[in-house]
Amino acid sequence: MSRIVYVNGAYLPEAEARISVFDRGFLFADAVYEVTTVLGGKLIDFRAHMARLDRSLSELKLPTPASHDELLAIHRELAARNGVDEGLIYMQVTRGAADRDFLFPPQDTPPSLVLFTQTMALRDKPAARTGIRVASMPDLRWGRRDIKTVQLLYPSMAKTEAVRRGADDAWLVEDGVVTEGTSNNAHIVTADGTLITRDLSHSILHGITRAAVLRLAADSGLKIEERSFTLDEAKAAKEAFITSASAFVLPVVSIDGAAVGDGAPGPVVRKLREIYIEEAVRTAI
Amino acid sequence: MSRIVYVNGAYLPEAEARISVFDRGFLFADAVYEVTTVLGGKLIDFRAHMARLDRSLSELKLPTPASHDELLAIHRELAARNGVDEGLIYMQVTRGAADRDFLFPPQDTPPSLVLFTQTMALRDKPAARTGIRVASMPDLRWGRRDIKTVQLLYPSMAKTEAVRRGADDAWLVEDGVVTEGTSNNAHIVTADGTLITRDLSHSILHGITRAAVLRLAADSGLKIEERSFTLDEAKAAKEAFITSASAFVLPVVSIDGAAVGDGAPGPVVRKLREIYIEEAVRTAI
Repeated sequence: MSRIVYVNGAYLPEAEARISVFDRGFLFADAVYEVTTVLGGKLIDFRAHMARLDRSLSELKLPTPASHDELLAIHRELAARNGVDEGLIYMQVTRGAADRDFLFPPQDTPPSLVLFTQTMALRDKPAARTGIRVASMPDLRWGRRDIKTVQLLYPSMAKTEAVRRGADDAWLVEDGVVTEGTSNNAHIVTADGTLITRDLSHSILHGITRAAVLRLAADSGLKIEERSFTLDEAKAAKEAFITSASAFVLPVVSIDGAAVGDGAPGPVVRKLREIYIEEAVRTAI
Repeated sequence: MSRIVYVNGAYLPEAEARISVFDRGFLFADAVYEVTTVLGGKLIDFRAHMARLDRSLSELKLPTPASHDELLAIHRELAARNGVDEGLIYMQVTRGAADRDFLFPPQDTPPSLVLFTQTMALRDKPAARTGIRVASMPDLRWGRRDIKTVQLLYPSMAKTEAVRRGADDAWLVEDGVVTEGTSNNAHIVTADGTLITRDLSHSILHGITRAAVLRLAADSGLKIEERSFTLDEAKAAKEAFITSASAFVLPVVSIDGAAVGDGAPGPVVRKLREIYIEEAVRTAI
């Protein structure tokens, strides 16, 4: 690894990219993040990520680290310095460093801002052709999953446990219905071709890729129902899929070992992936 | 501030006490902690903190950073270097630094170990004489509060909101019953002198001070019931209190603005604080 990482105004070799152990992101998970996709060296859905960042900051009364245009410039500089043609840019904002206290520090405490890149193939990945297998698990996360905080221990545990069970990811279940995947939104397509997706609330992340895909699906004439669905409903669906900034649209071909549809990626999901990527590239900045 | 801080084998001035931005404690809240009290330069209940640390590490499949005796030596060295006669030693263990991935990194990834001190008066504090006021709030934390992770954003938000409302701390309420305070266990004493405290489960932290106080209370002939209690039951109680490593035993004199008992610290809680501190000092190492 030899990336250049952005830390509070400085572009540093990653071995020197460090933050204070008193940073509240480290001590209290008092931090939010965004992950923006890079395709062909350009940023996907950047303005939507900024809007969601603002919402996360506002919900937590976190100070704004920089303007949208400054953040855009940092994203572009970092992609350029690391030669990222396809991959991700991770950005984290914390409430800054202060002596450890559950009470928020004074409002003028400077927030911390960290960004780094991850180069990886996103368009051409095997999982898009084979689909992924998910394992269901209880959703034990906190009550405000609509705020994109770094309190990611449980999703991390659930993904690791899913892989241990021979699956690729977990679908989290609460009160008998699916909330979402560990770092993606969950959707199904019924036998009559209706796309069913969990409605927005405090229970799930308000996915930017989710919103884009729903918009494109509606444009292409698909019927959409935003409501909760059970695991049994998902297992009986014709198709199932996840959406996220890094996954785009990926077919889910089995749930707890039971095949979804005929156990192969279906036409609706394949089509949604195709039109999403086309639109993402077309509107990249 | 000019403390010496321990970071992964090194004793550093606090301005140089930094960890990688790729540390999973920073990116995923994939970390656990303990806070040990220092009184008269000696450690309170150190072995119990080590036992709880081992449990947290085991539940999360986190690697052990050092033996108990090595950790004891670091605690003592840090207290000595910082001249801590009375205060706290904070210790955090993370799953180490690795490129960002929800999947746990390889098991041989070295965990990170960070310790720092906070000098403060613990025995002689105004709140012990005046009592504290608590404000109730819904408990929105994740489902495994028995594991002492750094996913402390909600407790931090709740404490800050409590202070904004003119109280000193929050009591968190779930399914109609009190779980605990933001960083302490909650207890009440009924009119007939019974100490009622929430039974242990995944819903609350298994407080070390809680356990010590219950043992001492039983020894002194107090009747104890370990069960859930409602906020109304707490408001109607004769006395109420919290326990934690840093608070020891502190009277709660009002809940959501309603006085508990006569609105002043009561005899049972005053006695428990006294005998707890005596025992803590007597058994310190």
